[in-house]
Amino acid sequence: MTLRDRIAVQLERPIVRYFILGVILFNAVILGLETSTEVMEDIGPLIITLDKLCLAIFVIEIVAKLYVHRLQFFRDGWNIFDFVIVGISLIPAAQTFSVLRALRILRLLRVVSVAPSLRRVIEGLLNALPGMGSVFLLMGLVFYIGAVMATKLFGTQFPEWFGTLGRSTYSLFQIMTLESWSMGIVRPVMEAEPYAWAFFVPFILATTFIILNLVVGLVVNSMQDAHHAEADELTGSYRDEVLARLSEIEGLLKTSADKRRDPE
Amino acid sequence: MTLRDRIAVQLERPIVRYFILGVILFNAVILGLETSTEVMEDIGPLIITLDKLCLAIFVIEIVAKLYVHRLQFFRDGWNIFDFVIVGISLIPAAQTFSVLRALRILRLLRVVSVAPSLRRVIEGLLNALPGMGSVFLLMGLVFYIGAVMATKLFGTQFPEWFGTLGRSTYSLFQIMTLESWSMGIVRPVMEAEPYAWAFFVPFILATTFIILNLVVGLVVNSMQDAHHAEADELTGSYRDEVLARLSEIEGLLKTSADKRRDPE
Amino acid sequence: MTLRDRIAVQLERPIVRYFILGVILFNAVILGLETSTEVMEDIGPLIITLDKLCLAIFVIEIVAKLYVHRLQFFRDGWNIFDFVIVGISLIPAAQTFSVLRALRILRLLRVVSVAPSLRRVIEGLLNALPGMGSVFLLMGLVFYIGAVMATKLFGTQFPEWFGTLGRSTYSLFQIMTLESWSMGIVRPVMEAEPYAWAFFVPFILATTFIILNLVVGLVVNSMQDAHHAEADELTGSYRDEVLARLSEIEGLLKTSADKRRDPE
Amino acid sequence: MTLRDRIAVQLERPIVRYFILGVILFNAVILGLETSTEVMEDIGPLIITLDKLCLAIFVIEIVAKLYVHRLQFFRDGWNIFDFVIVGISLIPAAQTFSVLRALRILRLLRVVSVAPSLRRVIEGLLNALPGMGSVFLLMGLVFYIGAVMATKLFGTQFPEWFGTLGRSTYSLFQIMTLESWSMGIVRPVMEAEPYAWAFFVPFILATTFIILNLVVGLVVNSMQDAHHAEADELTGSYRDEVLARLSEIEGLLKTSADKRRDPE
Repeated sequence: MTLRDRIAVQLERPIVRYFILGVILFNAVILGLETSTEVMEDIGPLIITLDKLCLAIFVIEIVAKLYVHRLQFFRDGWNIFDFVIVGISLIPAAQTFSVLRALRILRLLRVVSVAPSLRRVIEGLLNALPGMGSVFLLMGLVFYIGAVMATKLFGTQFPEWFGTLGRSTYSLFQIMTLESWSMGIVRPVMEAEPYAWAFFVPFILATTFIILNLVVGLVVNSMQDAHHAEADELTGSYRDEVLARLSEIEGLLKTSADKRRDPE
Repeated sequence: MTLRDRIAVQLERPIVRYFILGVILFNAVILGLETSTEVMEDIGPLIITLDKLCLAIFVIEIVAKLYVHRLQFFRDGWNIFDFVIVGISLIPAAQTFSVLRALRILRLLRVVSVAPSLRRVIEGLLNALPGMGSVFLLMGLVFYIGAVMATKLFGTQFPEWFGTLGRSTYSLFQIMTLESWSMGIVRPVMEAEPYAWAFFVPFILATTFIILNLVVGLVVNSMQDAHHAEADELTGSYRDEVLARLSEIEGLLKTSADKRRDPE
Repeated sequence: MTLRDRIAVQLERPIVRYFILGVILFNAVILGLETSTEVMEDIGPLIITLDKLCLAIFVIEIVAKLYVHRLQFFRDGWNIFDFVIVGISLIPAAQTFSVLRALRILRLLRVVSVAPSLRRVIEGLLNALPGMGSVFLLMGLVFYIGAVMATKLFGTQFPEWFGTLGRSTYSLFQIMTLESWSMGIVRPVMEAEPYAWAFFVPFILATTFIILNLVVGLVVNSMQDAHHAEADELTGSYRDEVLARLSEIEGLLKTSADKRRDPE
Repeated sequence: MTLRDRIAVQLERPIVRYFILGVILFNAVILGLETSTEVMEDIGPLIITLDKLCLAIFVIEIVAKLYVHRLQFFRDGWNIFDFVIVGISLIPAAQTFSVLRALRILRLLRVVSVAPSLRRVIEGLLNALPGMGSVFLLMGLVFYIGAVMATKLFGTQFPEWFGTLGRSTYSLFQIMTLESWSMGIVRPVMEAEPYAWAFFVPFILATTFIILNLVVGLVVNSMQDAHHAEADELTGSYRDEVLARLSEIEGLLKTSADKRRDPE
């Protein structure tokens, strides 16, 4: 048994998995405490040391896995996920309060890759997406057309909301979520362009209808998956029994017919 | 028949149940009237006396049940529910207008433990929760990660919204419900941090998608429960008949085959 | 054929039904035009006369139906509906711009009682309600408890929102619809009572969850109704055929067994 | 082979379809760039020339199709759709920044008519609409009645929101989407007319309930379509086999009965 095999065995042991899960959760608490200025004033250096310790454990785990699986490691999407999340934390952060420091809490997402039940939920969500591809494409079309039109129609008068394609897209997203769409955006716009509603109301109806279709699609898909499994399980044994008995009856009839034809 | 048995019989009588239900509803009206300053000025002492009377009846009921069932009483979740709700009202309230006085109206929830149809609705709701456990856990993860990131990224500039983990969680809950998320929170934040949308828009998409999955899961679960019951009821008798007849036919064939082999 | 029979026949003729439908729609247009001050300045008296004419036709129709059906008239819910709607318009309105004048447009709802397809939709909606009874009751409980608690907890400090049971109920309804719940209501309240979120967030979660259950219940109910009809139609003939053939086979076998026992 | 046939063959070639798809997407990018003032300052004339080139290609394609299919061209809804969208762009725009210029981005919608998967999604959406006809009609009724009542009741005091039928309809649409309905509209109205909630709260409940029914209807319809297809596929072969075997058994029994009756 080579060193590599022995490490592979160790990595698969439940106690190692639970230890890693524990470190992830402990690290999440540490990063939560880091947000409190009082805690940081009191025991700041300890918190930072503990966080570095957790990171070190994650790095060791990933290096061990890389040593064991070599390039096979990157075949599993969850491994790439772990690799990227831990990798982000290793990028040296120049400023004290950078975005990279904030991204470290994403390590908590590693819980998903460790806990099988959460993994299944995420995989279920991701599996549902491809079937919805056309609906997303349609939504993209509606948004792009809406953003170009809004920028051309209202861009010069309301540069803060519709000045560029990006701003228009953001404003249309806000309008799609129905947040302050009328009092906040459309009524002010209508004071300058009285027919603005003829653009925004159809936009709301279209996006709402597309989302509705996405929801209906998801419900129908999930239902059918559940139904298939259930139908197979429930009626399978009954069907097999009916067919088996029918075969047996046919067999008996044929034997008796044969016997009558050639009686000994 | 001991005293204990006689009390047990009394407690189970429908008239006693209806009397308790009546007291609960009467107490709810009393507590509703207590919110009106005019009514309290006119007949305040009467209202307070009637409330105490209702409470006394509840205490007697629970003491009787405790005497009958002893520690078995605490085996039923609904009994614990009643016990806690009545217990809260017995804690002496120091201030005249304390939170504890407001909690007394929770006694109306005892209607749920008395009325079987409401009990079934609540039990249905509670039964649906465990199957959704992973989805709730995922939502918890997204919220914790979101709160830590928001506190680190926007906490110093917008202390009122994102100053502590608690405030960030509340603000993210508001954003998840889509209330004033853009005009109220994200647009002001974007004036200081132009890329704030890159945090909030994915957060909205993620939480909305998780809720959507929770809804789809609930629909599919309820549907399957209903479907199972229906399938059993509808097709059960038909299936039994088909199998019974097939057995009979086989029996007839075998008998006739036996007879032909050994004709008397 | 008495006068009564002849009127009954006339009322059932399609042309009379279409005429009444036409009058309803014409009346709706008239009442729509009445909202325009310009139109009223130009041809106000004509509009009012035409409205009175429409009303007269409705009164004649109902009187005729009453003459034909006598008290049987009130057996049909839709007749009572028509009677009340037309009756409202006959109450003399003292003020020129009273609420009663505004209620006259409710006559347009008579379209529902005349058009069978709309009638079926409304009947479908109403039929779905009783099954949801417990859920509505639960929602009522949550609202009453919420209103009493909110009035006691926040009534003195925020009389405009939570001063009386009625105002609290309205504010809680607004909060349930998630409209400005946080920025508009809960954040201001939290400045006075920092733990107000502990009341409002559970209230939002509870009401949202109850509504979610109502939706799931409606979907499952509609689905089962559709499924029953479909299952009966689709598999009924197949099942009948299987059972019929099985009976025939049994019959043949028994005959052959009988013959063998008593060969002529 | 005439020129017409040869053009017909060319139009059906996949490479031509992909070329048209490419031109549509390229045109969308061009029109997106046109919204940027910097890009227009730098390479404005190039952008406008490329846009004209794309338009020319679309015109040539449609003229070619018209030449091939003659009046049959207008039999297909998607052809009419393409014709109108391209036609809009040919109307000479007097002002530099007119609405017509903004409408040119609608050409991107031609992607839908070219890509079969998107076409199916749109056709699915449109097919679902007729079954929902009664629900839309009901929603129309509720909106018309609501608009007339709101205009009569609140028009004089709140002309900006309820001054005309059109403004009332827009405000009621806003209220239906629950955007600022209470803080923005109903609370201010209630200061003048304290019982305004008795109009708006039932309006919200009615429209929400109608939308809920539309959603439930869509889910049930989609489910049944999916279920039909699945049921046919899954159980069809089993049923055929059971019936075929039963026929065979009957045949065997009848033959044996015939033989016994007429033994050779």
